[in-house]
Amino acid sequence: MKKLYLIGMGPGGPEYLTMQAVDALRRVDVFFMLEKAGRGKEELLQMRRDILRHYLGDDGYRVVVASSPERQTHTGDYAADVRTWHQQKRRLFAQLLADELQPGQCGALLLWGDPSLYDQTVSMVAELVEELAGDSSGGLDFEIIPGITSVQALTARHRIPLNRIGEQVTITTGRHLETCDPAEIENAVVMLDGKASFQRFRGQGMDIYWGGYLGCPDEVLVGGPLDEVLDDLLQTRARVREEKGWLMDIYLLRRRR
Amino acid sequence: MKKLYLIGMGPGGPEYLTMQAVDALRRVDVFFMLEKAGRGKEELLQMRRDILRHYLGDDGYRVVVASSPERQTHTGDYAADVRTWHQQKRRLFAQLLADELQPGQCGALLLWGDPSLYDQTVSMVAELVEELAGDSSGGLDFEIIPGITSVQALTARHRIPLNRIGEQVTITTGRHLETCDPAEIENAVVMLDGKASFQRFRGQGMDIYWGGYLGCPDEVLVGGPLDEVLDDLLQTRARVREEKGWLMDIYLLRRRR
Ligand SMILES: C[S@@+](CC[C@H](N)C(=O)[O-])C[C@H]1O[C@@H](n2cnc3c(N)ncnc32)[C@H](O)[C@@H]1O
Ligand SMILES: C[S@@+](CC[C@H](N)C(=O)[O-])C[C@H]1O[C@@H](n2cnc3c(N)ncnc32)[C@H](O)[C@@H]1O
Repeated sequence: MKKLYLIGMGPGGPEYLTMQAVDALRRVDVFFMLEKAGRGKEELLQMRRDILRHYLGDDGYRVVVASSPERQTHTGDYAADVRTWHQQKRRLFAQLLADELQPGQCGALLLWGDPSLYDQTVSMVAELVEELAGDSSGGLDFEIIPGITSVQALTARHRIPLNRIGEQVTITTGRHLETCDPAEIENAVVMLDGKASFQRFRGQGMDIYWGGYLGCPDEVLVGGPLDEVLDDLLQTRARVREEKGWLMDIYLLRRRR
Repeated sequence: MKKLYLIGMGPGGPEYLTMQAVDALRRVDVFFMLEKAGRGKEELLQMRRDILRHYLGDDGYRVVVASSPERQTHTGDYAADVRTWHQQKRRLFAQLLADELQPGQCGALLLWGDPSLYDQTVSMVAELVEELAGDSSGGLDFEIIPGITSVQALTARHRIPLNRIGEQVTITTGRHLETCDPAEIENAVVMLDGKASFQRFRGQGMDIYWGGYLGCPDEVLVGGPLDEVLDDLLQTRARVREEKGWLMDIYLLRRRR
């Protein structure tokens, strides 16, 4: 049998790994790194390499790097595009497991933040486990090691609770925020927002707590009443994206009471 | 100045602490442990003591234990009761800081899971920092160290994603689940539910992923289509609560597609 660890690496630096994650690293023969082509790719790979060097040194493990396929957007059918993309990734990863991991060995993926949050890897690997059940290679088993999410890095750095007493919190996407009725948003964390959709909430009594590159050397924070900080935030966002060539950001939108 | 670390300890065992949390532990002079009276109290305190022993041994730090006040429920006004409770806690903790922590020293609270999630400590300490600004003792500073939430322990142990592709997720309370329109629940994590409110969702095409005492020696999991596992889940819940005298549980309710 082959074993695969899906290890939550937290939002960036080695200090976010749990002891459980560090113990798992020590049992791994092959680390698979699948990263999308693009301007942040080298930096995101380097942060993973730094984690391995920090905890394991340079020897005793192998690193296999592959380019993750990109989502096609030409069909206009978002759900179908995502399904195709998902299948392409699964096929690529099945091939890597067949070629690079021997029965009895342990592989691992270092996943950004926590494996459960806006990451297809858990369902992809669960499907592979089904496909490989009863396979002549002995099948595949996997284990998930939780990691600190970017949501928690955000609230920790702003020193705020995620929810006020008894209140609920919704974790959602820029895609949803763009089109939803603004009145439905009370307390929401927004991820995967390339379009600064918080702009729609001007003049609606909202506070915003925003973080870019959290847990990374370039971390940047902006927080306060949305109407007051909006211009500064848009400028900051544009500037850091321009400087680094890519941006990874998250924010909490909260209706003031 | 006095410094306070709010350290997320994760859902139980020492292995959930991050390296950042372990580094913070080493800088602490006084650990404050405020636990509610009740049948789980000794066990919850012991888990914190085990973490300190595991990482620090027995020397070089002081532990101050205090009984946290309980929320009164007789007024019938939930929000007012919570405010009073919050104020009582703050007064108690202000006194502990005055009596037990010297200027220049570091104190810490080991908080269950992550400090941001359904925990009043962050806002309580933020208020104390304001109160003590300009105080003759030199004031108070604080820092938050994120920890693994019970939400992440739940998804890791069930080996499921928190959200399906592009979907949002809401983190809410048993109190809300009891009274909300069941049709509004698509994908929700429910915490603080003493009443097994998931029973309301029978016959509605829901899956449930439930976990009790996650990350602890008595961890127990039940998962599957709600209609099929409901009886088993209710029995399991009643049995473990009876055996241990207290229960700490969380679940994800997800509408099947
Ligand atoms: C594909 S999702 C993966 C999330 C990850 N699993 C987690 O737990 O944080 C990527 C999105 O997460 C957010 N994100 C992840 N890491 C971040 C960081 N270090 N700083 C700011 N945002 C981050 C951004 O919203 C980004 O678009
Ligand atoms: C006051 S809240 C604190 C939550 C904590 N800050 C966290 O991040 O998980 C307590 C609730 O969290 C959930 N919980 C916390 N730890 C848990 C565990 N180890 N297993 C199951 N549920 C847990 C339960 O729903 C419990 O009622």
